Amino acid sequence: MIRSETGDDGAEGGGVTAERRRPGRRPGSADTRGEIVVAARKIFAEKGFDKATIRGIAREAGVDPALVHHYFDTKEGIFVAALHLPVDPSKVIPLVLEGPREEVGERVARFILTMTADPMAREPIVALVRSAMTNERVVAMIREFMTRAILERVAVGLDIPPLRMEAAFAQMFGVVLLRYVLQVEPVASVDIEELVGLLAPTIQRYLGAD
Amino acid sequence: MIRSETGDDGAEGGGVTAERRRPGRRPGSADTRGEIVVAARKIFAEKGFDKATIRGIAREAGVDPALVHHYFDTKEGIFVAALHLPVDPSKVIPLVLEGPREEVGERVARFILTMTADPMAREPIVALVRSAMTNERVVAMIREFMTRAILERVAVGLDIPPLRMEAAFAQMFGVVLLRYVLQVEPVASVDIEELVGLLAPTIQRYLGAD
Repeated sequence: MIRSETGDDGAEGGGVTAERRRPGRRPGSADTRGEIVVAARKIFAEKGFDKATIRGIAREAGVDPALVHHYFDTKEGIFVAALHLPVDPSKVIPLVLEGPREEVGERVARFILTMTADPMAREPIVALVRSAMTNERVVAMIREFMTRAILERVAVGLDIPPLRMEAAFAQMFGVVLLRYVLQVEPVASVDIEELVGLLAPTIQRYLGAD
Repeated sequence: MIRSETGDDGAEGGGVTAERRRPGRRPGSADTRGEIVVAARKIFAEKGFDKATIRGIAREAGVDPALVHHYFDTKEGIFVAALHLPVDPSKVIPLVLEGPREEVGERVARFILTMTADPMAREPIVALVRSAMTNERVVAMIREFMTRAILERVAVGLDIPPLRMEAAFAQMFGVVLLRYVLQVEPVASVDIEELVGLLAPTIQRYLGAD
């Protein structure tokens, strides 16, 4: 074990000063985290989400897999960071699903509309959809991530068929596209709460019990 | 009035052999229709749907506006031809809205899913959405066409607020994207009638009476 000469990289908590040095592997440096992110983007684009591994990303970045784990915890965490996604589904979904089942539709609709109202949160998602429209590899990567990290997790958490979750996702996805990408009126300008009132019963029908 | 030397252009009914010759305007030729389409694409992309005119398209193509009318009837008709859209909304919407109001959700869901099941019908729509994702002018053009030719027409026809129509459109648009572009399972492979059963009550809630 050696101390990294450069110390804190400024990007994360700051506790990352020790790691194993192995032949051909560099210690944590000012941009180790950034280099892992760059490596991750390459690996995810090449292999998709399912076949990408933390070990493969570490190899591409020339660092120890433990360092990747340290920075990003899980493969989902790396994906979220690499694509600048606004939230990690594994952390947000349990919070949204928590609470009365008869209000899950309202919670999901309000969460998605509130999150996407922030341009800083929305832009990376729009950018991802944009590149998916023209790149088959990006499509595969998004499809696998969506399926594993969002759709399956919600369907299992609520004990509903995946198709119902996909119908709910399609409703919210379509609204976000009309509101922010196509900017059709009145959906582009209407108040979030008016949209929640209109959409929540739909999402409730898909995600509610029974 | 003169006869076009080249006769039928092979693209339409075949009755277009006579037209007025004016200075600087060419008579109908083997690809007059194709030239109008090329001109229309340019004008729609430059001016959007609302500000484009048949007169402006005719001028760009170097033909008489009456010839444009003859081939395409309306500005919507030219747009549909220029962008290879599978159907002209002005012709299809009345048919879909006709029939019992309490089944309009089912009719709309089945129509959209059946139409988009045909790759020849779907591809131009996907291509259009694709270019909208990366080109602001295409976005404006689609937004205007959607608003005038689809959303307003249905909202007026059914006497519902436009926002309800947009919610319905968003649901179907999202499902088509998940099914055919992102190809997420199970929605990508499931039978159309199963999807109609799942989605029709949603569309009915938005488009139904009251």
